[in-house]
Amino acid sequence: MKNFFVSKSRRIRSTPFTSRIERQGVKSYTVYNHMLLPTTFSSPEEEYNHLKEHVQVWDVSVQREIEISGKDSYKLVQLMTCRDLSNSSVGRCYYAPLVDLHGKLINDPLIYKVEENKWRICIADSDVLLFAKGIAETKEFNVQIKEADIDTLAVQGPKSFKLMSKVFGEKINNLRFFNFEYFVYNDYKYLISRSGFSKQGGFEIHIDNIEAGLRLYDYFFEIGNEFNLKPGTPNHPERIEGGLLSYGNDMDLGDNPYECGFDRYINLESDIMFLGKESLKEIEQKGVSRKLMGLKIETNSLVVNKWLPLLNKDNIEIGELRSGAYSPKFKKIVGIGMVKKEYCKEGENILVNSDGKILSGEVCNLPII
Amino acid sequence: MKNFFVSKSRRIRSTPFTSRIERQGVKSYTVYNHMLLPTTFSSPEEEYNHLKEHVQVWDVSVQREIEISGKDSYKLVQLMTCRDLSNSSVGRCYYAPLVDLHGKLINDPLIYKVEENKWRICIADSDVLLFAKGIAETKEFNVQIKEADIDTLAVQGPKSFKLMSKVFGEKINNLRFFNFEYFVYNDYKYLISRSGFSKQGGFEIHIDNIEAGLRLYDYFFEIGNEFNLKPGTPNHPERIEGGLLSYGNDMDLGDNPYECGFDRYINLESDIMFLGKESLKEIEQKGVSRKLMGLKIETNSLVVNKWLPLLNKDNIEIGELRSGAYSPKFKKIVGIGMVKKEYCKEGENILVNSDGKILSGEVCNLPII
Repeated sequence: MKNFFVSKSRRIRSTPFTSRIERQGVKSYTVYNHMLLPTTFSSPEEEYNHLKEHVQVWDVSVQREIEISGKDSYKLVQLMTCRDLSNSSVGRCYYAPLVDLHGKLINDPLIYKVEENKWRICIADSDVLLFAKGIAETKEFNVQIKEADIDTLAVQGPKSFKLMSKVFGEKINNLRFFNFEYFVYNDYKYLISRSGFSKQGGFEIHIDNIEAGLRLYDYFFEIGNEFNLKPGTPNHPERIEGGLLSYGNDMDLGDNPYECGFDRYINLESDIMFLGKESLKEIEQKGVSRKLMGLKIETNSLVVNKWLPLLNKDNIEIGELRSGAYSPKFKKIVGIGMVKKEYCKEGENILVNSDGKILSGEVCNLPII
Repeated sequence: MKNFFVSKSRRIRSTPFTSRIERQGVKSYTVYNHMLLPTTFSSPEEEYNHLKEHVQVWDVSVQREIEISGKDSYKLVQLMTCRDLSNSSVGRCYYAPLVDLHGKLINDPLIYKVEENKWRICIADSDVLLFAKGIAETKEFNVQIKEADIDTLAVQGPKSFKLMSKVFGEKINNLRFFNFEYFVYNDYKYLISRSGFSKQGGFEIHIDNIEAGLRLYDYFFEIGNEFNLKPGTPNHPERIEGGLLSYGNDMDLGDNPYECGFDRYINLESDIMFLGKESLKEIEQKGVSRKLMGLKIETNSLVVNKWLPLLNKDNIEIGELRSGAYSPKFKKIVGIGMVKKEYCKEGENILVNSDGKILSGEVCNLPII
């Protein structure tokens, strides 16, 4: 595939770390929430192997945080998600599908309950702020809605625990998965969650002060050598194998949360109020006809920048391959696809139509192990 | 400025014309409404000169069209915009600022009234679909909201009239500015508007059938030689000189339509209902303290990928430069900036702080002539 340059403008915002990662040799970007997301420093394969053994710092400032505060903030947040947040606790993050009236996916954010009446919705790539505004301003809710001035660094990989405790002290290793707390470095308090878009363990640091963020960034790379620290990015083969979904790639407004395997985040039995409740009840009753599944495809190289048709042995379309990347572990392409229910079985043989070239593959469960 | 590659994935959609423009030598992209927008084939200067003399075809499929239909469609569209659409006509396009409850800008689309109860909102770069959904699904409006399967080709430049009449017949030249009609080529009916993001005249072709769109695209380049037709893109210096604003660059959710010079699209005296009406009344009464203005800056080269502070002669900040590009006409940088009211005078001297480098310039009216 030929390479093309990205044009920068203010509409596609840089992050506070952009100039640093450019000095560190970033090669390519994508755009996510109107902002630059680095995608490679060396190669996805090299970075995959490094991520699984060592530790990386990622500039994931693109995970913009929509802050909803005020008396009606719970009501608004709950209206947008099918996950029951009525018993949620300050200090915890909730992976919570946002759905519209028809039960279709608007986004799949991690929602942080920061205070009793303050939430931060850490969004995937769609303007959740506008959805929240549309609802709140029509309902005349007593809320403030804004994109918070927060930029995020992810520290990911097995050695992230050692690196982070060297900077923030041993007690950071007591932080449990999807919990967050404040930790101090150099007199500044950082909100840190045990979270991140990899399966290798790690943290996300939510930075509300650019000076403090840059100081921290530089300090990581000052002391990081002993952990073989490198700058990195969310890694496609790793996240696909881990079954971490990417909104806009694996699912979008055409899909419902049951099709995406989000069953445990859909709380129809509770008496919470959310927009898509009646629709999801109907969908649940009827059952879904397709699901997101893992896929292994017999080739070393495949460009998946659009959904590619999946076929059965009779060349009948049975779904689409939605993401794909070369896996250094399986030595073939691993992918995520929406698959007709009767083919959603581990080991089921399928074909992929890549612009006329037919590849063979098989269905597998997520995560791909 | 160093160049970086753009990573493609399905989340950043290609258009039906992407493979063609890549064969035609596109060099760079930006991302707009989650889709690829080409930005250069040769150089902005060369394309500026060509656009002003000849004709270009642009792949502007990124101008996604949010279709709102059904019994309550007018009510919904009107709730989002401060422009009075109560007397609007089928066959016309309306440039209409969308505003939130606080009178801040959500988007600045061109709204097409396609049928009595069917509208298409041709959007700038923000997810207006989600704003519309938030309102409609809360109000329980009887509407259907979707992103239409429409991709747009712009034909721009002084020779666009000759090229288009050769393809669609002489009567296309009777189409008036911001009107649209259906025209036939090769047995297919295309919705064509007299519109486009340049001041050189031209049309936009709204393509609802990919095969037909590709046939038309190829035909343009088959017969285009006599008009010196080239593939092109929206041209920054040309659109800045023309005073055509770019949402996300020149203005965003922090600005109100009075500050952007949209006064003639704000109809407070009519009895229409829209979300931001009370806020805009207050703003109008108080008057604004700053406005978008043209700027000329004494340098040949300036990177504006963030807002750059504007200073007065005492080094006091008086606004920001928001867009800038080298103008082959003025042989300097032309720009658009938000300027404190007392400095909003043609010829007013200002300074620009570009990462510590101080440049001199002057304020001018838009369009810059």
